[in-house]
Amino acid sequence: MKTEYGKLTPQIIDELKTAVGTANVVANDPDMLDSYAWDQAGQVWGHMPDAVVRPDGTEQVSNILKIASKYRIPVTPRGAGSGLNGGAVPLAGGIVLSLERMNRILEIDPVNRVAVVEPGVVTNDLCRVAAEKGFLYAGYPMSTETSFIGGNFATNAGGGKVIRYGNTRRHILGAEVVLPSGEVLQLGGRYRKDTWGYSLLQLLVGSEGTLAVATKLIVNLEPKPGKTVNLLACYPDLDILVESVAKVIGSGKKIISCEFMDRDIVKYTTEYLGCMLPEQERSEGYLLIQLEGDTDEELENAYEAVGKICLEAGAFEVFVAESRTDSAAMWNVRQNGLEGMRHHDPYASSSGDIMVPLSSVPEMVKRTKGLGKKFGLEMGIIAHIADGNIHPIPTKPKDMSVEDWAVYSEEFFAELIKEAIALGGVGSGEHGVGHVKQKILMDSKTPVELEVLQGVKKAFDPQNILNPGKMFSPLD
Amino acid sequence: MKTEYGKLTPQIIDELKTAVGTANVVANDPDMLDSYAWDQAGQVWGHMPDAVVRPDGTEQVSNILKIASKYRIPVTPRGAGSGLNGGAVPLAGGIVLSLERMNRILEIDPVNRVAVVEPGVVTNDLCRVAAEKGFLYAGYPMSTETSFIGGNFATNAGGGKVIRYGNTRRHILGAEVVLPSGEVLQLGGRYRKDTWGYSLLQLLVGSEGTLAVATKLIVNLEPKPGKTVNLLACYPDLDILVESVAKVIGSGKKIISCEFMDRDIVKYTTEYLGCMLPEQERSEGYLLIQLEGDTDEELENAYEAVGKICLEAGAFEVFVAESRTDSAAMWNVRQNGLEGMRHHDPYASSSGDIMVPLSSVPEMVKRTKGLGKKFGLEMGIIAHIADGNIHPIPTKPKDMSVEDWAVYSEEFFAELIKEAIALGGVGSGEHGVGHVKQKILMDSKTPVELEVLQGVKKAFDPQNILNPGKMFSPLD
Repeated sequence: MKTEYGKLTPQIIDELKTAVGTANVVANDPDMLDSYAWDQAGQVWGHMPDAVVRPDGTEQVSNILKIASKYRIPVTPRGAGSGLNGGAVPLAGGIVLSLERMNRILEIDPVNRVAVVEPGVVTNDLCRVAAEKGFLYAGYPMSTETSFIGGNFATNAGGGKVIRYGNTRRHILGAEVVLPSGEVLQLGGRYRKDTWGYSLLQLLVGSEGTLAVATKLIVNLEPKPGKTVNLLACYPDLDILVESVAKVIGSGKKIISCEFMDRDIVKYTTEYLGCMLPEQERSEGYLLIQLEGDTDEELENAYEAVGKICLEAGAFEVFVAESRTDSAAMWNVRQNGLEGMRHHDPYASSSGDIMVPLSSVPEMVKRTKGLGKKFGLEMGIIAHIADGNIHPIPTKPKDMSVEDWAVYSEEFFAELIKEAIALGGVGSGEHGVGHVKQKILMDSKTPVELEVLQGVKKAFDPQNILNPGKMFSPLD
Repeated sequence: MKTEYGKLTPQIIDELKTAVGTANVVANDPDMLDSYAWDQAGQVWGHMPDAVVRPDGTEQVSNILKIASKYRIPVTPRGAGSGLNGGAVPLAGGIVLSLERMNRILEIDPVNRVAVVEPGVVTNDLCRVAAEKGFLYAGYPMSTETSFIGGNFATNAGGGKVIRYGNTRRHILGAEVVLPSGEVLQLGGRYRKDTWGYSLLQLLVGSEGTLAVATKLIVNLEPKPGKTVNLLACYPDLDILVESVAKVIGSGKKIISCEFMDRDIVKYTTEYLGCMLPEQERSEGYLLIQLEGDTDEELENAYEAVGKICLEAGAFEVFVAESRTDSAAMWNVRQNGLEGMRHHDPYASSSGDIMVPLSSVPEMVKRTKGLGKKFGLEMGIIAHIADGNIHPIPTKPKDMSVEDWAVYSEEFFAELIKEAIALGGVGSGEHGVGHVKQKILMDSKTPVELEVLQGVKKAFDPQNILNPGKMFSPLD
């Protein structure tokens, strides 16, 4: 069912200019429009908008959507453009609604332990300001230095601390959102518990801007964590490594992170950074484990217990970071995994991040390697492994065109996602769907579930103007 | 928009008997039907069903709903009937779908830290079996000994440990559900993180059986907590008490529970139980605080710090439970608060449980007392106070009929809910809406939000056969 959209005429552009000011509507500057045409999925997945509109406040967002609604113009909300699956790409043209100017931290409320923020706040800015006030904003993804909190909300972002604190969903307590019609809803509030009708708030988390546009978010702040220590365990064999993860998690110690890097990720990333990890010559993979404790004694008990588990499982060394510099060096490699692979091959694809139950991680890693071989792909693997969230990063075969690679790599991920679902998992843990994985998502649902999901979309967006072509509303 | 329902004819009864076996369809036994006509809201809020059907398994649930769907017969799912707002009352007659026979704990999965259960499992049975395997099921309400896990899911149940572990929403990882059409959906799984399309699972939590019927749940298990200790702080003044709560919560200590009881609750409950709390003569209210620590030392530090906060705030005594017996005695009073009030007056109403931000608790307690005076009501107050979740329990004026009291008490709660919303809160923290508060819920939403909410209902239940008259679908 193809939607017939209106054309963005000069008259409508004028209406938009009246709504947000002339300087905040871009319509005839191809270079500028191009920079809003794609995200971190890569330019090959891009699509040009007809205009970019940059509102400053809820009322302006509302007015833009009222205009779009009146003329049935597609609107694609955009945060930092740091998404990996083309969620912010304006597939049907029309308007890109960029939230970059709405970047204020409106309040840190210490009694209720919440922050009130606009969607364009860079996640790390929120983390920093919260820390200054003695709190932790715990819902931050690996892209914390670039991503916006609005994008985190839209994709239910994860990151390296999900085993301890949960993903973004757990930290969203309230939102002001604008419906495609331009009407404003207030959802949730400065509390952590409610049961007062269907939770539209929970439904909107992870809906990738296809149902409503968040213009304000109330987020949970955690008390600052205790002391932490980082361990790096080096393994001769991946089977041994992944099997030790369940034991580490089952230890009952306070584990904030448990991250996996394989040989190739480490190789390319240390080359890129100009550093070395210990035992790099003979390690097939590493676990980077962060532990928390209230006292030095508790911390020491924790790292000794966890270190012992790793060694008994077959790690040949476990290093405890003795200083901040040590810790930073370990985390630097993990955090730059994608950059390392892209230094090796700029077309390395990080769009896929399958999820499986912890018990299926060993089998899923095997199948990932097997599928890589079948597709003839070189790849590195990083993972939020204790979550069961695996990120294979395959590189483009040398003789393949960028266009063919875009298709081929997603054929690989499509098969991988089928395997993950067969193992009791799901297609994405934190990267989301966007338009790169839109068809795979649709194919993974039964016709009955699709009907319900499309009914939900219709309840919010009967004209299908908000981020068309994504989620359960293909363009044709 | 009144829905025209089909009549439950003898022929349809026969079809139901074929679906679940003759013994599991009750249609002509008024006494038996009556016991499914009402819940803990009281008989005055009841309504007779035409039949009760007791399936044993997903396929039978599916077949019942297919029959109901074909003839447009209303279906009201029912758990333990322990709800306080009439959520399980078959307002439009038709079929009560009782899940009491689906009471198996299907699996405790230690690696993925989940339990797989049927909806008719008594919450406390799950807690007990999980504990035997070394885990904690943390999502349990105060009615843990009677309520079903399916009802906890339907109402997003809370309880006394929400500040530490979150409410039921956080513990629901997956569900098998049957749509009103009889079709079966599998949602979520044995993992704690995903972003793969709209979360129908999150939408179903707290939807009170108006969208789908859960036939299997995958729930989160927590590692067993460390050692715990209980404190009882006695206050001469409620203002002082409620103001100390934010300080207790802000202490950074591991607080599992922080419960409030006022003078009257304690008076009637200790009379009922035949016991006394310390300082009962001169205390206006109590805080019952449970703390957690990994070591005796940590625990001691915690209770000394928290005790000091209470004393500095103005408590005249803080008692540390020195034994299990001490702890049990303190908790016994808290857990029997409603029974105590009902011993004093069998018509004491516990249907209301307003939620406000922690910062608004002092003002909300004042307004609750004020409204009680305005309505001429005697009442006790208990609260999960650190959540901002306040339960006033007013008693029936002596000369008022039971029928008038049902109306009058809900007028009181309706005004109270308006106050809570004005203070940034919401109408219920854990008791839910049912039909007792259905109109208040509707009135608290804007027309625009209602339209979206009703669109969501329609996406699941286009014929409006599932639990009609509840949530956003009034009977007429």
